[in-house]
Amino acid sequence: MNNSSFRLSEIVARLGGKVLGDPETEVFQVATLEKAGQGQIAFLANAKYRKQLEASRAAAVIVAETDAELTELPRIVAVNPYSYFAKLSALLNPLPAMPPGIHPTAVIGDGAVIAPDAHIGANVSIGAAARIDAGTVVMVGCVIGERTIVGAHGRLYPNVTIYHDCVIGRHVIMHSGVVIGADGFGIAMDEGCWLKIPQIGRVIIGDHVEIGANTTIDRGALDDTVIEEGVKLDNQIQVAHNVRIGAHTAIAGCVGIAGSATIGKYCRIGGSAGILGHLQIADNVEIASFTLIGKSITEPGSYAGIYPFSRNDEWRNNAVHLRHLGELVKRVKALEQEMKSSKGEKA
Amino acid sequence: MNNSSFRLSEIVARLGGKVLGDPETEVFQVATLEKAGQGQIAFLANAKYRKQLEASRAAAVIVAETDAELTELPRIVAVNPYSYFAKLSALLNPLPAMPPGIHPTAVIGDGAVIAPDAHIGANVSIGAAARIDAGTVVMVGCVIGERTIVGAHGRLYPNVTIYHDCVIGRHVIMHSGVVIGADGFGIAMDEGCWLKIPQIGRVIIGDHVEIGANTTIDRGALDDTVIEEGVKLDNQIQVAHNVRIGAHTAIAGCVGIAGSATIGKYCRIGGSAGILGHLQIADNVEIASFTLIGKSITEPGSYAGIYPFSRNDEWRNNAVHLRHLGELVKRVKALEQEMKSSKGEKA
Amino acid sequence: MNNSSFRLSEIVARLGGKVLGDPETEVFQVATLEKAGQGQIAFLANAKYRKQLEASRAAAVIVAETDAELTELPRIVAVNPYSYFAKLSALLNPLPAMPPGIHPTAVIGDGAVIAPDAHIGANVSIGAAARIDAGTVVMVGCVIGERTIVGAHGRLYPNVTIYHDCVIGRHVIMHSGVVIGADGFGIAMDEGCWLKIPQIGRVIIGDHVEIGANTTIDRGALDDTVIEEGVKLDNQIQVAHNVRIGAHTAIAGCVGIAGSATIGKYCRIGGSAGILGHLQIADNVEIASFTLIGKSITEPGSYAGIYPFSRNDEWRNNAVHLRHLGELVKRVKALEQEMKSSKGEKA
Repeated sequence: MNNSSFRLSEIVARLGGKVLGDPETEVFQVATLEKAGQGQIAFLANAKYRKQLEASRAAAVIVAETDAELTELPRIVAVNPYSYFAKLSALLNPLPAMPPGIHPTAVIGDGAVIAPDAHIGANVSIGAAARIDAGTVVMVGCVIGERTIVGAHGRLYPNVTIYHDCVIGRHVIMHSGVVIGADGFGIAMDEGCWLKIPQIGRVIIGDHVEIGANTTIDRGALDDTVIEEGVKLDNQIQVAHNVRIGAHTAIAGCVGIAGSATIGKYCRIGGSAGILGHLQIADNVEIASFTLIGKSITEPGSYAGIYPFSRNDEWRNNAVHLRHLGELVKRVKALEQEMKSSKGEKA
Repeated sequence: MNNSSFRLSEIVARLGGKVLGDPETEVFQVATLEKAGQGQIAFLANAKYRKQLEASRAAAVIVAETDAELTELPRIVAVNPYSYFAKLSALLNPLPAMPPGIHPTAVIGDGAVIAPDAHIGANVSIGAAARIDAGTVVMVGCVIGERTIVGAHGRLYPNVTIYHDCVIGRHVIMHSGVVIGADGFGIAMDEGCWLKIPQIGRVIIGDHVEIGANTTIDRGALDDTVIEEGVKLDNQIQVAHNVRIGAHTAIAGCVGIAGSATIGKYCRIGGSAGILGHLQIADNVEIASFTLIGKSITEPGSYAGIYPFSRNDEWRNNAVHLRHLGELVKRVKALEQEMKSSKGEKA
Repeated sequence: MNNSSFRLSEIVARLGGKVLGDPETEVFQVATLEKAGQGQIAFLANAKYRKQLEASRAAAVIVAETDAELTELPRIVAVNPYSYFAKLSALLNPLPAMPPGIHPTAVIGDGAVIAPDAHIGANVSIGAAARIDAGTVVMVGCVIGERTIVGAHGRLYPNVTIYHDCVIGRHVIMHSGVVIGADGFGIAMDEGCWLKIPQIGRVIIGDHVEIGANTTIDRGALDDTVIEEGVKLDNQIQVAHNVRIGAHTAIAGCVGIAGSATIGKYCRIGGSAGILGHLQIADNVEIASFTLIGKSITEPGSYAGIYPFSRNDEWRNNAVHLRHLGELVKRVKALEQEMKSSKGEKA
């Protein structure tokens, strides 16, 4: 927790950008404009925060070219201050190194192949013939199924479960409670009972995917469930069997995606949204929080379907009419016709 | 992963139906019409997929009597091709056998009774006086509370947690991250603080229930929470205390069921739906995804309450009027009266 | 499971209230009016249940002063029968004592400080320099990160995960599958890829907080995520980074709270509701189930925004008009103007 300090001149040498003000200024941590103090560097992503900038006691700030003269603080001018900030924060806050090797309490199945520099924590279970690649960290209590492959430089936080035969790419992060490859919800009615459809597909996850706590991604029924590279999933998302999520799509918490839905690349899906089964969502689609997508979307753009909230009594007074909206439309139509014929009479 | 092959004649001898075409045709795996190739058998559940059937390179297909002549491929004619397919897939894809016995790292409480042919995986904890019946598989990292009973032929995937004093039927499947028997959400306000109501009921789960990953079922406050036989629950469902779910009801992912709700038999509930507390839902009720059921349903049938999505700007233009819908209805009523009196004047 | 019996006279000596009827009546368990039998005590929270009271075979009941004469059963008269019942149930159903000490399979990091009377269960992992205070129970399979503090008299059920550097208050209960301190969902787009924003804040949880199964609370991005004292969270709630939840707020299952939202004290939030990011919710706000709060709420009161459900065909007939509601309003306005001008003509 004792970060190293970097001079602004060192930072731009590593990450690009240029320094205005004293290049010898040292920073050891990032912070918000409001809270930053000695040795801390903040960023201004949007000129509307210039008030906070004026009041800031940060040691330095990251600003865009257009905002370079809004402050006299030592500053780094960057094309995209927010992503610059992300990179700088990663530099100042390196992940704690986890010692290579297999904890003595871990249980390793026959034929499992574990890279010598991988970290296998306490009480981890690695299934037979599974593979953990170079530099990957598998923290305490994780369970990796038989024949599953976890690519290089991954980071599985404690108590992640991956079932058998899944394929996880490189640089993948999974947070605690994630479950990958559980059976999809496949059932067939047979003489008054549900029969289970064996789920024989896999889950395939691309490189640079991050998956939030307690998110679940089911294995495919026959074919695979696929999460393409660069996808970012927040917490408590449910991804059903045979879904495909396109590269670099970002999905907020509590979203549910039903079976065989296909989501394009670079989509952004708000929290608690839902997507019904077998739908296709085009690339670059943005979906508002709390919106159920009930048919395919073929055009990029922003979509929403949220019932607006109000005070309970107002809501009640208004919502009651939703059950008669069709009737109301007919009444208006009738009025229009009466009006028309009434005018006709007069004419 | 190397399935055994079966001749069509062997399959119908085991599962019923009849063969048209070469009964010696061998298959080792199921697949979709589109992807099936050598040695693979697909199914046609609906004549609308006949195009895929025509193009299919499957070794054989399962079809209904009415579709028996849509193809010349070797085929099995079955009453219900989809459930036949489920049974055949189970035949071709038997679950991997788990060796009987207790892993040396498992921790077994005093007086626990574990069937000799049960499988108790690594790092499992079985509470005092708990019982694991014949043939049941408890995979790595599961925790079974004191006095809890898990019936015969169950399958608990890794990292399932069952609290104390619960009763689980036979042939029950639970996926990773499932939590059974945590305290229900019972609190009473007392002088500005919430007091906890001890949750002293249990969870009772019937035979042939399957529970998806990260689903939670709380123990009852005083009486029990009950999941009847044959119920199928998808992932990330929340079942509150004292809920009863009737036999053979199927519930999709992310549904929330509030305390003391009673759901009938053979219901089907769509993803992310909700049911308020203390409601009664009749048998054979179908509830659409994303629908909140806010009062009891006494008649079987299909119910929905979804706000339709549209492009964001359209949605905004329309939704704004929901806050004045009651007023709009009054305006229409006023117009109707004016129209009526205007006609009266003219008459 | 064999509770001790208490005489009513003993109970009021401990918990207050007064006895009417035989003070020597003994009870060993609480139950509902309907199910209570020999040795069991029920409560009447609301006079509308007086029918059940009349039929009850309870050994005794807890009633309010105003209902004291509704029954001749031995009874305790209390100011708030429901909270009295909670206290009595806690007296009759003490939590099972967990033996102090560290299970031999637990893995304890360097410099961790564990109170001598704390219980550390099997397969628990306590990170380096973490602290577990007096009387706290950490059940099997829990993982506590480095430098995290868990205050006195806490109870962590099996398979809870708390990341590094978090601070948990006293008397905190967490149910299985809870994940505290996972990374918030912070990403910045950079040349077609999402960059991860390191999440360097913490989670701070006050005293007397209870957290339901599989709920997730993310660590702050820069500053901390804060749950104030007395907050009660049900199952499967998602609390994003930098959220603050005010003291004594109670939140039902499946709620999602987006980043940097601030929720007041004594709020009550219904199941599956949502709160968008950066909003402020005043104290004493009640939010209905299934309601998305899309802008800040500055006044206490009840708020809702639920689409009412109906039979599927009715819903379909009505909902279709929501996409044209703006147009309908215009048509009504046009009619009003025509009506007005038509009257003008006549006048």
